[in-house]
Amino acid sequence: MTSVQTIGSSVVPTETARVRLRPIDGRGVVIRDGLLADRQRVNREVTLLHGAEELERAGTLDNLRIAAGLTSGERRGMVFSDSDVYKWLEALAWEMGREPSPELERLARDTIDLISAAQEPDGYLNSWCQVVDPAWRWTDLRMGHELYCAGHLIQAGVAFARAVGDTSLLTVGRRFADLIDESLGSDAGMGTDGHPGIEAALVELYRQTGASSYLKLADTLTARRGSGMFAGGPFDLSYYQDAEPVRDARSIVGHAVRALYLAAGVTDLYAETGDQTLLASMLRQWDDLTTAKTYLTGGIGSRHHGEAIGDPYELPPDRAYCETCAAIGSIMWNWRLLLVTGESRFADLLERTLYNGFLSGLSLDGGSFFYMNPLQSRNGDRRHSWHPVACCPPNIMRLLASLHHYLATTSDSGVQLHQYATSTIRAVVPVAGPVELAVETGYPWSGSVTVEVLECGDAEWTLSLRVPGWARGAVVDGQPVAPGYAELTRRWRPGDRVVLELDVSPRLTAPNPRIDAVRGCVAVERGPVVYCVEARDLPAGANLADVALQPDTAPADSGPLAPPLGGLPGVSVAGVVRDLDTWCGREHVDVRELPRDGAPAPAQLLAIPYFAWANRGDGGMRVWLPKSE
Amino acid sequence: MTSVQTIGSSVVPTETARVRLRPIDGRGVVIRDGLLADRQRVNREVTLLHGAEELERAGTLDNLRIAAGLTSGERRGMVFSDSDVYKWLEALAWEMGREPSPELERLARDTIDLISAAQEPDGYLNSWCQVVDPAWRWTDLRMGHELYCAGHLIQAGVAFARAVGDTSLLTVGRRFADLIDESLGSDAGMGTDGHPGIEAALVELYRQTGASSYLKLADTLTARRGSGMFAGGPFDLSYYQDAEPVRDARSIVGHAVRALYLAAGVTDLYAETGDQTLLASMLRQWDDLTTAKTYLTGGIGSRHHGEAIGDPYELPPDRAYCETCAAIGSIMWNWRLLLVTGESRFADLLERTLYNGFLSGLSLDGGSFFYMNPLQSRNGDRRHSWHPVACCPPNIMRLLASLHHYLATTSDSGVQLHQYATSTIRAVVPVAGPVELAVETGYPWSGSVTVEVLECGDAEWTLSLRVPGWARGAVVDGQPVAPGYAELTRRWRPGDRVVLELDVSPRLTAPNPRIDAVRGCVAVERGPVVYCVEARDLPAGANLADVALQPDTAPADSGPLAPPLGGLPGVSVAGVVRDLDTWCGREHVDVRELPRDGAPAPAQLLAIPYFAWANRGDGGMRVWLPKSE
Repeated sequence: MTSVQTIGSSVVPTETARVRLRPIDGRGVVIRDGLLADRQRVNREVTLLHGAEELERAGTLDNLRIAAGLTSGERRGMVFSDSDVYKWLEALAWEMGREPSPELERLARDTIDLISAAQEPDGYLNSWCQVVDPAWRWTDLRMGHELYCAGHLIQAGVAFARAVGDTSLLTVGRRFADLIDESLGSDAGMGTDGHPGIEAALVELYRQTGASSYLKLADTLTARRGSGMFAGGPFDLSYYQDAEPVRDARSIVGHAVRALYLAAGVTDLYAETGDQTLLASMLRQWDDLTTAKTYLTGGIGSRHHGEAIGDPYELPPDRAYCETCAAIGSIMWNWRLLLVTGESRFADLLERTLYNGFLSGLSLDGGSFFYMNPLQSRNGDRRHSWHPVACCPPNIMRLLASLHHYLATTSDSGVQLHQYATSTIRAVVPVAGPVELAVETGYPWSGSVTVEVLECGDAEWTLSLRVPGWARGAVVDGQPVAPGYAELTRRWRPGDRVVLELDVSPRLTAPNPRIDAVRGCVAVERGPVVYCVEARDLPAGANLADVALQPDTAPADSGPLAPPLGGLPGVSVAGVVRDLDTWCGREHVDVRELPRDGAPAPAQLLAIPYFAWANRGDGGMRVWLPKSE
Repeated sequence: MTSVQTIGSSVVPTETARVRLRPIDGRGVVIRDGLLADRQRVNREVTLLHGAEELERAGTLDNLRIAAGLTSGERRGMVFSDSDVYKWLEALAWEMGREPSPELERLARDTIDLISAAQEPDGYLNSWCQVVDPAWRWTDLRMGHELYCAGHLIQAGVAFARAVGDTSLLTVGRRFADLIDESLGSDAGMGTDGHPGIEAALVELYRQTGASSYLKLADTLTARRGSGMFAGGPFDLSYYQDAEPVRDARSIVGHAVRALYLAAGVTDLYAETGDQTLLASMLRQWDDLTTAKTYLTGGIGSRHHGEAIGDPYELPPDRAYCETCAAIGSIMWNWRLLLVTGESRFADLLERTLYNGFLSGLSLDGGSFFYMNPLQSRNGDRRHSWHPVACCPPNIMRLLASLHHYLATTSDSGVQLHQYATSTIRAVVPVAGPVELAVETGYPWSGSVTVEVLECGDAEWTLSLRVPGWARGAVVDGQPVAPGYAELTRRWRPGDRVVLELDVSPRLTAPNPRIDAVRGCVAVERGPVVYCVEARDLPAGANLADVALQPDTAPADSGPLAPPLGGLPGVSVAGVVRDLDTWCGREHVDVRELPRDGAPAPAQLLAIPYFAWANRGDGGMRVWLPKSE
């Protein structure tokens, strides 16, 4: 294995990039305890190995073996299933960088060897084309996911180089990228991929290699969108991000994952090129997304049909699509916008998405996955151990294995803490040299965050602590601070401590009146965590459809939940179980003949963290609960 | 053309059928004036001819010409497009029976000749198989629509026999049915069609020919469902009505049109076989449908994905699918249940569906069509002049051309009027001989219905007038009558008149609290007609998302609407335009910091009949409007 020196993080802008904040080396960050540490541990001990088994069982690895001529048989699975392997490999890379593991290293080395063997002499690599139809190459850019798969290959290669200094997979990815550039880059008649993803990968490849051809190719592929090249397919142009040029877009539309992956790549492209038309488009799209197209959980995607972002204010809780991959795409995009702008709103949405619409995608035991993450389920849902379209599981793995990349950044003048977890953070601040911080907190369950300076130079520098947008009455060392960044500029000394206090007591949240689907409802939140009510926790005989909540009574902590919810804090809410028998099963009545509801039965309702739903068997669930009248 | 004597109606149970009511000969019913007459006139003068042009333009007729060897070329359109031709032909048949037309007769004769020429010597007929892949026969029952198309062919043949006494197309259909029976009927290893439809057709073919093999085949194909024969396809088993045996079903699920077509066929099968397990299943499914799965418009189908009936109480107005064909399927089913049971609830739902979820499928000018009929559109929609999946347009045509079949029935003891239109109705009552009635009414706009006996025998018989479920304070000749049937048993004399008075003044309707998607909303209805508000009628500058309705003020008639709404009655509703600027674009807020809405601006809102929306250009629409607070 060849070794390279680089910064071990997911997104590494070049020295000249237009960013206000810079990632710190992921190898210097350790999440030591708490919810995120637990999720990283389960990912390492259970999910990554489960992924290896499932990729084997589904034939996804065999597809590459057939392509490599190591075995024979029929290719199995979706056209884009190679990308499942690449995403899982990326997860292995970050996890090996976090903490070496002979078992993970063996899995990674075997798989990298397999991928290398499958690559054709000219650099091409795609098991669908190689096994099913060699004439298919570049012929189905609309639905073939050919460049999308290449993008994930490149990302995995970049991750191995950055996390463990192994460039063997990067070399494979680079050879394929060179072939793509040669085949598609210079011929203006060629298109791009119907599923974005390669854009961010090419920018990262440029960052990792210094070869500007990859940056140029990312720009070329991006600029081709919006010409209607994908007309005539099974979906409308917005599905493929081909309805209008990226630079002109005033709203964010189409297939949610495609939209968000593209946005992440375009934001990277802006950072490296400084093209203001790209940034302006990104900020317009972000405003559109967060004004009227984002769920309370951070989930994105209101429609099953076309897996699409819906119209403004079209946010049904029950038919929410909210693909786990869309939550991941949103986290990727918001992280990049945070680096570019330094604005806390992006870290806020990243946090909301992380603790809710993303974490819900994985069972607490780490062995099963949600593809969709609705905010209401009338009959319950079960996570699946794998999925025929297996994009989400390895995507979850790579984000969990790299969660520590997203805690903190540096700027010229200091260190910024964006997400709170008990952790050790080593960074280098230009004005002050190496800095080491220890964070102690029970976050997100407790709002108390203690930051201790373990090491720093003599110069003055600024410690910035994010005060989340949801926080009220936050204080730092006893002084009130407003949402945004609390900036503490001092000549720090080892042993200095700062305490941030955030009020995470449970609260009720109301939706904008334009969101039709949850009119008359409220939701329970606690700190950054969205809560839900599961039918199984209702009083005996009560129907979740008949439960309402008393909005004038504040919700209260009810203590740790029982296993398997592993001590997560429960919340008690004053509610009622309505008696709707007087409706006699009628769907509609004349308002002059409205049945008088029977006397509602008061009930204390137990709410649990939304991300932990569906871990105790079947049963309905609601985030938004009607207000009692 | 061979001539046969029969009763000219859509559904004609045999003498021994288990029906409480019997259809009357459609050739003895004339709708002379009013809304339904206008819709029949536009269908005859515009829509049927438009259909001929579009079938030509889409290549749908050419496909049959290629199959017949009359021309060459590539087959165009969907696998099931032959059925578009058959449904259009069925419409021509009923229309020619209603009133002869050389132009329609020429179109019909040419097309029947073409179909006859395309039929293979063994009776097979399907342009996909014949043109694209002769080996395809019976190999893709799941998605191929092979028997579905055959069903529509048979229905068209039956219609020509009954409406105009021409059996040439019936002969074609019968030959194909015989081949299907021979090929699929006796081999227990064979399946049925993934898209129901042939069941009702086979029962009707049995009724028309007396050959019990068709009834047996309908039963066989029905009994095969629920074995999981369609596992492994792109949809779950409920989509194909293959999740459980029809006789066991406790709920109605899956693709809405498939579910409703099957239900119509199964109800026919019950009527002819007397198999009580079938009727019991039908009544259970109907209860399930009307308790929690039917829109206010009568529309069915809550999901775009799988074009499916949703979970109970899953009735989003914006993403309602409500395919026009599902409305037609519901009308077909309810008519059959009405014949079987004689209960007014089925005629009530037929009426609700007819005036709302069905009529909305056709533009007022008769030249464009909605496939989906949502109850809310944020940005507006346009009807299309045709559709790549062109099932709805000719389906609308055949129902409009046969609307007069659904007005009245006879029983042993009298005549029942179910739907009201200015019309002449001739029937034969067993106890009283020929009866002729003249109905004069402005229904549905006026609630006054005058029935005059023009001709009758001396014996006592009963005139039954349906009092719709929505009607309050109805009177017949000054006497209060309750919803259901007002039965008037007399020795009638020519010149006798009865007057039914229904209160059609506008009213507000509230939804069951379990219907999450329209919580806090009310709708405007007027008689059987559901109303809506279109954005274009709002005060200047108002946003339809910000409009609310004052539920304590009764809506009122506001006089005839201007063209192109052709004098339809408008309704004025007291409302407000809310000022939501105080939300500053936020999606959610802490309930303790709810922005105080700006002062709402009072506004009189104009509501128009829902079926007439989207006839004046683009713009949003809502049936359910939030109540002001």
